[in-house]
Amino acid sequence: MSQADWEPPHTGRPLRALPTCDGVEIIDQRALPHELRVATLRTVEDIHTAIRAMWVRGAPLIGATAAYGVALQAQADASDGAMQAATDHLAGARPTAVNLAWALARLRRCWQPLMPAERAAACWAEAGAIAQEDLEVNAAIGRHGLRLLQSLAARRAAERGAGAGPLQILTHCNAGWLATVGWGTATAPIYRAQAAGLPLHVWVDETRPRNQGASLTAWELSQAGVPHTVVADNAGGHLMQHRQVDVVIVGCDRVTARGDVCNKIGTYLKALAAHDNGIPFYVAMPLSTLDMGLDDGLADIPIEERNPREVTHLSGADADGVVREVCLVPPGTRAGNPAFDVTPARLVTGLITEHGLVAARADALSRYAPPADGWAAPGQEPAQ
Amino acid sequence: MSQADWEPPHTGRPLRALPTCDGVEIIDQRALPHELRVATLRTVEDIHTAIRAMWVRGAPLIGATAAYGVALQAQADASDGAMQAATDHLAGARPTAVNLAWALARLRRCWQPLMPAERAAACWAEAGAIAQEDLEVNAAIGRHGLRLLQSLAARRAAERGAGAGPLQILTHCNAGWLATVGWGTATAPIYRAQAAGLPLHVWVDETRPRNQGASLTAWELSQAGVPHTVVADNAGGHLMQHRQVDVVIVGCDRVTARGDVCNKIGTYLKALAAHDNGIPFYVAMPLSTLDMGLDDGLADIPIEERNPREVTHLSGADADGVVREVCLVPPGTRAGNPAFDVTPARLVTGLITEHGLVAARADALSRYAPPADGWAAPGQEPAQ
Repeated sequence: MSQADWEPPHTGRPLRALPTCDGVEIIDQRALPHELRVATLRTVEDIHTAIRAMWVRGAPLIGATAAYGVALQAQADASDGAMQAATDHLAGARPTAVNLAWALARLRRCWQPLMPAERAAACWAEAGAIAQEDLEVNAAIGRHGLRLLQSLAARRAAERGAGAGPLQILTHCNAGWLATVGWGTATAPIYRAQAAGLPLHVWVDETRPRNQGASLTAWELSQAGVPHTVVADNAGGHLMQHRQVDVVIVGCDRVTARGDVCNKIGTYLKALAAHDNGIPFYVAMPLSTLDMGLDDGLADIPIEERNPREVTHLSGADADGVVREVCLVPPGTRAGNPAFDVTPARLVTGLITEHGLVAARADALSRYAPPADGWAAPGQEPAQ
Repeated sequence: MSQADWEPPHTGRPLRALPTCDGVEIIDQRALPHELRVATLRTVEDIHTAIRAMWVRGAPLIGATAAYGVALQAQADASDGAMQAATDHLAGARPTAVNLAWALARLRRCWQPLMPAERAAACWAEAGAIAQEDLEVNAAIGRHGLRLLQSLAARRAAERGAGAGPLQILTHCNAGWLATVGWGTATAPIYRAQAAGLPLHVWVDETRPRNQGASLTAWELSQAGVPHTVVADNAGGHLMQHRQVDVVIVGCDRVTARGDVCNKIGTYLKALAAHDNGIPFYVAMPLSTLDMGLDDGLADIPIEERNPREVTHLSGADADGVVREVCLVPPGTRAGNPAFDVTPARLVTGLITEHGLVAARADALSRYAPPADGWAAPGQEPAQ
């Protein structure tokens, strides 16, 4: 497939099954924003590598990609032993994202009762269903988030009068369509608002050490024509102190029963600054991210410690457009690289879910405990 | 002068007057940590460039370097008009650091009453005095800070018992000897503690966008043999949540009468996290940094907006050791680059000054209002 065919709409499709069901195509996100590189994954090992080495990243996309990995395994060898081994292998590719375990468990419920010969078709269908549901979930997050942004824009206009300027949104990392099967989570309300003609501007945290903001969110927003400005992660507090941010919207990798939010390292610092300045801090959260088995996020969520080289080295394009890796520290310097942090529920204004806004509190979230057979499709919204 | 001659002790000397009084030598800090490059500055324009383009940086070093700039001007043309023009030119090189204006005002008090022919010698002497006083001030900050670190280490040992491990210090940016005439401000207590045999470990914020932590502080600490680990700016909150930080020590560029602290962008976020986790947050502060003319730091301190290219591009060493600049964002991406932020006094546990610990409060700071003829040398400490 040529890259030209991949020209995505701004709601995006970073993952799709090949028509012949012998692989999936993904955008290898490591090459962005300098190159739009498409990779074809044909084996469980390909899928494992793509998840572990972050060719694909973002909790929802990791879950859907892993599901296709199980389907590829079922096609190659659908015996119980092989299916179990593939599931275990994939589960270890990234330790933090709950969607990975969730998708693998859902696939297991699909293949386990079946005869091996029936498993491949069922797994392809189930992986496809996960992908389709993710699209629908994010579209619903976008609809609910749009109403939120409209009300915040109205408040801004009321406070500042004519010439209030665009609604100012700050986001951290990439919770965009590149992190999902489409639309994105934190970006879904932004794309909806852009389509609805709401004037807005997005502050994009560059998001060290992997720079998903500077490289992925900035690229996504520029594709969609959404006005945006990249800033160092250090700048957000200052912007909030000076009333240059109306709302913070981030994604999440895992949310506990009481509403603690695990997300990209640095999210907690932005939540503190938002709280200190009276600025609403929202988390876009597919309900599949809810982990009712955990309560105290700080004590209970294992935080992935990634390769220190992600801190000490960095890739970018030189003046000739050649992507080069450079070292930022003196030789032999030790680096630490925790990949996520936990934002306590007390700092979270609300969760934007496919069923509407939900408070980051145990009583509110308990209504959304996952049923044993997975999530209902969004649409019928509880009175919340 | 060969670079070998520059082998500095770990307390450092990044600036010194040439013996012949026709220039000053500095470390061009832009080349660190990949190269130790020494530059000779012979004109006011050289000095202006070195300050503006951040060959030298750090409030105390900027002040001393500017003072030598006035001396160079006095040697070239000591007429009132030329001296005034040079002063005005130098004052505009960096807008935020109060030490720059302070040093220029002090030099003016030196040269203005004199005949032009007398000015050069007097200005050289005065610049030398500023440099020597900075050394003494930082040495005193180190002595007071050492006592603080010793008491924090004792508390850590009492709380954690045997095997408490080293005292864990987090610092942001570079307030080290490279930022001063020697010792550093935030690093002076660290170097003293290291010399005193206190086990310690320093978390070094990389400090985007210019990476002064990853490139300068890490280099300084490695020269001195102080155990340290570089982390992304995003990581500090997580480390504090997990009790991996005992104390935060940062430098400052300006402190207001009520104790608001202007320092490198991102300092405010670390102060919020320290406050949220009950971790002491100290600011190493030569009293020359106190600006009694300002009260509300947030409203009153102008924040320098620097070139967006510092955010979008970054230099590092490639695998062959060649320093290369790479671009981190999609072509045409807009970036914002506020260089400083303001940490409200309420988040500051205390100020480590040359006269001892001072509370970040108007009543405490009012005792240190600068006398018209500058600061007394440290030594006799008021009962504080």
